[in-house]
Amino acid sequence: MATIASRTIGPLSFETHPQRYRHWKLAFDGPIATLSMDVQEDAGLSPDYKLKLNSYDLGVDIELADAIQRLRFEHPEVHAVVVTSLKERIFCAGANIFMLRGSTHAWKVNFCKFTNETRLAMEDASAHSGLAFLAALNGICAGGGYELALACDEILLVDDSNSAVSLPETPLLGVLPGTGGLTRVVDKRKVRRDLADVFGTLAEGVKGKRAVEWGLVDAVAPASRFKDAVAARAAELAAKSDRPATGLGIALKPLALEASADHLEYSTVSLAIDRAKRVATLVVRAPIEPVESTPDAIVAAGDQFWPLRAFRELDDAILRLRVNEPEIGTVVVKAEGDPTLVLQADDVLLAHQSHWLVREVVHFIKRTLKRVDLSARSFFAVIEPGNAFAGTLFELALAADRSYMLDDPDGRNAIQLSGMNAGPLPMSNGLTRLATRFYGAPEKVAEALAHDGPFDPRQALDAGLVTFAPDEIDWDDEVRLAVESRAALSPDALTGMEANLRFVGPETLETKIFGRLSAWQNWIFQRPNAVGPKGALTSYGSADRAEFEFGRT
Amino acid sequence: MATIASRTIGPLSFETHPQRYRHWKLAFDGPIATLSMDVQEDAGLSPDYKLKLNSYDLGVDIELADAIQRLRFEHPEVHAVVVTSLKERIFCAGANIFMLRGSTHAWKVNFCKFTNETRLAMEDASAHSGLAFLAALNGICAGGGYELALACDEILLVDDSNSAVSLPETPLLGVLPGTGGLTRVVDKRKVRRDLADVFGTLAEGVKGKRAVEWGLVDAVAPASRFKDAVAARAAELAAKSDRPATGLGIALKPLALEASADHLEYSTVSLAIDRAKRVATLVVRAPIEPVESTPDAIVAAGDQFWPLRAFRELDDAILRLRVNEPEIGTVVVKAEGDPTLVLQADDVLLAHQSHWLVREVVHFIKRTLKRVDLSARSFFAVIEPGNAFAGTLFELALAADRSYMLDDPDGRNAIQLSGMNAGPLPMSNGLTRLATRFYGAPEKVAEALAHDGPFDPRQALDAGLVTFAPDEIDWDDEVRLAVESRAALSPDALTGMEANLRFVGPETLETKIFGRLSAWQNWIFQRPNAVGPKGALTSYGSADRAEFEFGRT
Repeated sequence: MATIASRTIGPLSFETHPQRYRHWKLAFDGPIATLSMDVQEDAGLSPDYKLKLNSYDLGVDIELADAIQRLRFEHPEVHAVVVTSLKERIFCAGANIFMLRGSTHAWKVNFCKFTNETRLAMEDASAHSGLAFLAALNGICAGGGYELALACDEILLVDDSNSAVSLPETPLLGVLPGTGGLTRVVDKRKVRRDLADVFGTLAEGVKGKRAVEWGLVDAVAPASRFKDAVAARAAELAAKSDRPATGLGIALKPLALEASADHLEYSTVSLAIDRAKRVATLVVRAPIEPVESTPDAIVAAGDQFWPLRAFRELDDAILRLRVNEPEIGTVVVKAEGDPTLVLQADDVLLAHQSHWLVREVVHFIKRTLKRVDLSARSFFAVIEPGNAFAGTLFELALAADRSYMLDDPDGRNAIQLSGMNAGPLPMSNGLTRLATRFYGAPEKVAEALAHDGPFDPRQALDAGLVTFAPDEIDWDDEVRLAVESRAALSPDALTGMEANLRFVGPETLETKIFGRLSAWQNWIFQRPNAVGPKGALTSYGSADRAEFEFGRT
Repeated sequence: MATIASRTIGPLSFETHPQRYRHWKLAFDGPIATLSMDVQEDAGLSPDYKLKLNSYDLGVDIELADAIQRLRFEHPEVHAVVVTSLKERIFCAGANIFMLRGSTHAWKVNFCKFTNETRLAMEDASAHSGLAFLAALNGICAGGGYELALACDEILLVDDSNSAVSLPETPLLGVLPGTGGLTRVVDKRKVRRDLADVFGTLAEGVKGKRAVEWGLVDAVAPASRFKDAVAARAAELAAKSDRPATGLGIALKPLALEASADHLEYSTVSLAIDRAKRVATLVVRAPIEPVESTPDAIVAAGDQFWPLRAFRELDDAILRLRVNEPEIGTVVVKAEGDPTLVLQADDVLLAHQSHWLVREVVHFIKRTLKRVDLSARSFFAVIEPGNAFAGTLFELALAADRSYMLDDPDGRNAIQLSGMNAGPLPMSNGLTRLATRFYGAPEKVAEALAHDGPFDPRQALDAGLVTFAPDEIDWDDEVRLAVESRAALSPDALTGMEANLRFVGPETLETKIFGRLSAWQNWIFQRPNAVGPKGALTSYGSADRAEFEFGRT
């Protein structure tokens, strides 16, 4: 009986700090940081399993995600990160099988989604922040451990009789590597598909020269030379970085959050839960005064710089919603305050994009918005007088499945675009939300961006920027009915529908991982051959062998 | 209790003929053919349901697929096809719900896969054969009915108070439109994602002017002018075709098949089933004499022209294997005979690609190979002396998940490429199988294609064209063990793994439909919210309302 779930784990916080890490050690040596996995067996989120052999659960990954975030903001002087392990002859055994076996379907799916986002955040840091990752595999590297290595820029494997990389999920557990492994093997590392097929069915994995030949790792080094080889390669990777030569970074301090059973109140974000209706209302508030406008002042403001503060709070709210509130199906999204102050903040972000901190802030906003896109909840933007849906905050309306804008007779209701809608905040498909919205009609994107000043409701509707613009007479009923009728639909069909409608156009490694690989994994995670009484995941580690129903589907 | 399955339906044949159609009428008027749906309620594959309101099951779709195939081969003088219905005020109600509800998971999945392939075959005919499709929606067009329309080049909807297009799967049945609907709405017709979201949750659908404005249909016409509007538009579409101005086509006669319980024997293909091992052996034989080499001779040979005959037989064998033999997990693929005769056939296909019939043959080979790629079975190519894995037949080895080539000491074992491996037979991802194999390394594709003459086993291995080349001592054990160990793995994990490894690189409408949409649909098809005792699919048409478990996943 699967018992590990948000219900049994209890409300989860995604905030942590290196001083509180139990599973990772972060060490610094000039431009090189070393992130070492040293999982404490007894410090899992649930007492139902022990995290042996550097296997991990969501708690371990929350620390990893925190470390990567802090490296970006707090340590601009770090130019390369070595990811390794402090356990002898073991890098990482992957996601803990007993945790997976004991988890509800929803918990498994949320766990995989978060770990996928963490791996993608590493690739994002490498692609956009000059922060390279070197996986230094000092021992056995299996399943999710190898998937972590795959998210690094390069993989160095110790060459001994013991250390292999492997994806044993299919042969041992009857499931898929759920954290991008298959996609990264063929699409990122370009391992030949037939070799990937062999690799993906070989429980013991591949080691030494063969791992290099197949493209599964970049190099091997004997144990005697391993440390030197890692250091040399890390230095080479660091030398390519465009990050500042010296610190200081900014401190990411704890979020200002007052949390109650049905309300999260941050400084600029609030999330109100209506359990009876299964609806949450998410409000993001504009700055109340102009944001700092020079790099020095922005660095001095640090985590209180409004764009960073607002999106850190939003990110936290979305994560908590996902894991702690599975029954909330619809999120009504509002932006409140003075839109001109949002646009002023956008001007600052655009003017200083090349400054390391502003660059980090913009990419953080981008990643947070991607989390919204990838959340299995319906989002409806509701746009009323007093709204701050402008520029970056209008991305929230564009990320929503629909938007309702009151056709206010007093002419006070408006939305506005900025340069932040024109490129810096792409979705996982590589397109801006405007280009996604007007897929196949780039002239509509250009027209909307060329529009000077605010759009009133009629203009917004004509430009295609909002879904509906009811007048005052219809407003209350129309919005209420839309939210109510959404809540009545099958949550699974909605998840599938949204996952297909949100990501039009090109597919990328990211969209393949979330759209294709995760969808197949979710399917398999429900199949009796994996999770039934005699399924492979159920039988793992017991005396019983899995028994399959062999019909191919 | 779901009882509709290959077991209860019995071995299915995919062969039919217009004279035997029960659900479609095919009529000709010069360059315009009209394909009219007129489903016979009582002629479903199972007595468990009645095919009311032009709803369909797999039997209906087998006739549609046959009609499209025959239009391509038998009627080159047809330049446009009107797809309509003979039922008053109803175009098509989509897949039969009672059939879906009563079907096993595997049957539902196979049904959706085949209908998807049929819709894609229509788009293939339009893109590559100058055969345009006009959906003439003379009435209600719901679910799979609208998905059929979406596969047409244009959609004309009658404008009355009754006729709407709709995708009611999510609101009514708690599942997704399973035949490409969501993908085609946003990716092909480029309906805005928020409007698509509204449309996808509106059971009653969208009609009239709004359907045009949202991009759901191309035009509407009042009932009084509908026939004329259809005729005028069909004539315009036909005028653009590059097909021959007059017939005659070739006749697709019944396949030469001797079928027994565990063996299908065609003229050039055989499929031997080993149920105990859950393995099938598929053999395709080279021509036994040079194929006809002039267009006139090819037309005269008709369906006996070896490339067409061999791939029609292969197509039929794959379809029967999929539906009738769900327990067969692994297919050992062999090609036998004289490879020089395969290469001679390839020369003919390449030399006459612009001839209408040769063009049809090449696209048919392409579609058949795509069916292999999309089959949820493991394919292992086994290459031994006497093999005919050359050119087009080598595509079968490239389509396989792995290949084993005997390193024959007598030097008799060889493979060879041809121009047919260089472009005419792309996969669903738009790449050739060679480009897919060497994704990210186009120089390896070029090198392999530049190689003159046959590859011996060492050369094939060095060029990356085969997976393994064991010597005689290891051969039997290695192949036997590979096949045996494959058969022991979870069939679901293998399906997911193969679906992720086979389609590297770019994604297309096709790969999105099979990789993303189908994977989500398969997930939903298993969820209690759809198929549990109180699920929406279970409750449909009964007095009970669906009851959902509202946790979002």
